[in-house]
Amino acid sequence: MSDKYDKLPLDPLFKTIDELKPQFIERLSKAISIPSVSSDESLRPKVVEMSKFLVDELTQLGFQDIQVKELGTQPPPVQDANLQLPPIVLGRFGSDPKKKTVLVYGHYDVQPALKEDGWGTEPFTMHYDKTKDILYGRGSTDDKGPVMGWLNVIEAHNKLGWELPVNLVVCFEGMEESGSLGLDELVAKEAKQYFKNVDQVTISDNYWLGTTKPVLTYGLRGCNYYQIIVKGPGADLHSGIFGGIIAEPMTDLIKIMSTLVDGNGKILIPGVDDMVAPLTEKEDGLYDSIDFSVEELNAAAGSNTALHQNKKDILKHRWRYPSLSLHGIEGAFSGAGAKTVIPSKVVGKFSIRTVPDIESKKLDELVFKHINQEFAKLKSPNEFKVELIHDGNYWVSDPFNESFQAAAKATQDVWGIVPDFTREGGSIPITLTFEKELGVDVLLLPMGRGDDGAHSINEKLDVSNYINGCKTLGGYLHYYAKA
Amino acid sequence: MSDKYDKLPLDPLFKTIDELKPQFIERLSKAISIPSVSSDESLRPKVVEMSKFLVDELTQLGFQDIQVKELGTQPPPVQDANLQLPPIVLGRFGSDPKKKTVLVYGHYDVQPALKEDGWGTEPFTMHYDKTKDILYGRGSTDDKGPVMGWLNVIEAHNKLGWELPVNLVVCFEGMEESGSLGLDELVAKEAKQYFKNVDQVTISDNYWLGTTKPVLTYGLRGCNYYQIIVKGPGADLHSGIFGGIIAEPMTDLIKIMSTLVDGNGKILIPGVDDMVAPLTEKEDGLYDSIDFSVEELNAAAGSNTALHQNKKDILKHRWRYPSLSLHGIEGAFSGAGAKTVIPSKVVGKFSIRTVPDIESKKLDELVFKHINQEFAKLKSPNEFKVELIHDGNYWVSDPFNESFQAAAKATQDVWGIVPDFTREGGSIPITLTFEKELGVDVLLLPMGRGDDGAHSINEKLDVSNYINGCKTLGGYLHYYAKA
Repeated sequence: MSDKYDKLPLDPLFKTIDELKPQFIERLSKAISIPSVSSDESLRPKVVEMSKFLVDELTQLGFQDIQVKELGTQPPPVQDANLQLPPIVLGRFGSDPKKKTVLVYGHYDVQPALKEDGWGTEPFTMHYDKTKDILYGRGSTDDKGPVMGWLNVIEAHNKLGWELPVNLVVCFEGMEESGSLGLDELVAKEAKQYFKNVDQVTISDNYWLGTTKPVLTYGLRGCNYYQIIVKGPGADLHSGIFGGIIAEPMTDLIKIMSTLVDGNGKILIPGVDDMVAPLTEKEDGLYDSIDFSVEELNAAAGSNTALHQNKKDILKHRWRYPSLSLHGIEGAFSGAGAKTVIPSKVVGKFSIRTVPDIESKKLDELVFKHINQEFAKLKSPNEFKVELIHDGNYWVSDPFNESFQAAAKATQDVWGIVPDFTREGGSIPITLTFEKELGVDVLLLPMGRGDDGAHSINEKLDVSNYINGCKTLGGYLHYYAKA
Repeated sequence: MSDKYDKLPLDPLFKTIDELKPQFIERLSKAISIPSVSSDESLRPKVVEMSKFLVDELTQLGFQDIQVKELGTQPPPVQDANLQLPPIVLGRFGSDPKKKTVLVYGHYDVQPALKEDGWGTEPFTMHYDKTKDILYGRGSTDDKGPVMGWLNVIEAHNKLGWELPVNLVVCFEGMEESGSLGLDELVAKEAKQYFKNVDQVTISDNYWLGTTKPVLTYGLRGCNYYQIIVKGPGADLHSGIFGGIIAEPMTDLIKIMSTLVDGNGKILIPGVDDMVAPLTEKEDGLYDSIDFSVEELNAAAGSNTALHQNKKDILKHRWRYPSLSLHGIEGAFSGAGAKTVIPSKVVGKFSIRTVPDIESKKLDELVFKHINQEFAKLKSPNEFKVELIHDGNYWVSDPFNESFQAAAKATQDVWGIVPDFTREGGSIPITLTFEKELGVDVLLLPMGRGDDGAHSINEKLDVSNYINGCKTLGGYLHYYAKA
């Protein structure tokens, strides 16, 4: 693939990025310090604060036409019926009709995080471990690091006095961790307006497969997230007084949750596996060359609890087969120690990762049908409901198009190695929306490593990934401009 | 039963109690304002503060020989290995060898409570609803109201200038909601020392069966509380990246928890039901006269989700059959909304209410055996452990002894009605310890109503129950002194 482009003289850019390292780390530190957790309604003002931080940064860097798009009231289920969605921040750097236009998407919201979950340091105070050269903090890798990366690329060009080789459009949202509510509509609406000259969309919101080799990603699983609500008594009850004489919602919920997936990861909901595209010989061959091993999986998971013992099975089950995870129960006792409570209303949470050719609506039907049947079997007097909280489709693209090849060249310049072309188990639903609404290709260009702990405790971003990531993003724009 | 004693002239005592109502409510308000949650390690200082409050009250009322018994370090499982148990407070009012000596037990710790659990007002700020004449707050009925009740009885006697008809010994503990750790040992140790002349033990730590008729209680279920720990990855993981390729602890735990009890309340652990004493015809007849109905159960539960539709079945399943409740899961996602996490370590909590003739140790064996078998079936690579958190035996006494009959007479004087003799579904493990170690009878003399919401949100104590309860406690001492 290196034949497609001549090597560009990008050393001055890379050197400038190295010089700006302290400023770039400071920028990320500021971003992490704002706990923009989109799933926690009480932290919604912090999500909005984060959007303002971005607007300030864009303004200082010289972006034009900055627009803060309000998305209105968040639809149910919500606790506060008037809860406002966080805005989408749009900005434009350059509008030369002779240049290509690249749209860069990122999100400025993060997953929940509490020190007591097991973090080594405060999750919303960036911790720079200089011995390991690692930056710790919620959002460091998902997705504040990459978002800051794009800003850093502009700052480096400004300092060098270099012109950006493309027109850059940024689109930063604040609800990615909570189903990207409102984004699909905005992209559809702006497709022929703010986004009208966009030639390509680039997203840095995923990770290397392992910890040593850069990757470019051409496929993602989708995610349908469900909740099962079982409601009995009017309030939590004392299990001594009421145990044995009322139907306990937890008993019903646990029974239903136990019928969804088995210990080998097999989904027990009838019909789901039947929708999965059959594995062709050609696809099977693709997994052979990928650099990965069960040892890398075990190292990333911190355990020896892999369900499959060879590389190809692991990759297939991460990328091209669905999975079902039981996330937890809202409303039940969740603290340490013992509480003799009968919870009155419990809400079981689970999600299914989707792949070609699972149709999202058909999946919902199968899930609802199965769970309704299982609840009916219980003959319970409790109230019961199952609902979809959010969904997002899977996505698969062409790894041999211009943008993937440009990114591969930049990666080679920075890391000295040809990247692996991979798919991913996680979902970035907006990928599909951009592709469909704008009619352009989407490139996933990850910055962080497979062990960064996105969504987990002690989330981190290696400084080398942050700084080389900035170089790769910048280099990619130059190669793509020449294509 | 009213033939056994002549009616005593207690009207001056009752009138004084009425006059002291504002002070008594103020005393309870102060007690509720101290969040003495024994199961929350971070609130342990508040439990200790509550013990000091009691010492101050006892001192001011003229108690002698007040002793604060330290119980040492709390045994595992604990987060802080040096956690100190809250002390037991002992006090003595009178020591006339010609009088009988009554030991009064109560507990000054409470269940956890958070406003966001659904409380109408702050749980640790007493709310006096004057329209309904009800006092709301955590501990109002369980067990701070009754504990304050005994202090109120002394205050009324002091004000009247009446001598207390018995010697009163108080024993107040701070770990009742967390297994009464350290109490058994203290009672055994003090049986021949501080408690040596005790003739009778009275406990006010349970509730009327319904909401209108006072009861005296001669039986209690026990409670064995267990946790199942399943541990997989080293930290919580992203379900997109790891879903389908590692064994998820939640899947194992939910599967095991689903094998413990069915929707009809039937315990599925083999051998447990076989240990239950058979129902005799005589015992069956006892349930006929009790004032109770499925409607009262539904009203107390706030739902129409009763497992049995006739009074006798309900009472039997509350009092003389075991039950198993699934309380919740520690370590899983428990918040509102959606979090796409694979929890790394989950701890399932459940308890079994025990009855004659279930042997506690035998029960543990059956539970451990069943759960180990169920886990083995899963062939899971995850780590696994099941353990007892705490246990307390069931208790049954003789409702026709002196103290029950004295309490019945006092109840008649105050409420104008013969109380029902009942058993209870909840556990007060110490009842059995006092009976065994001191070799005396124990009387359970409840103050609150069946709908008070002990262990639930909006816990309350009706002012009439509080004030008439004080009269009943006081009157009982006078009748018992004459027996």
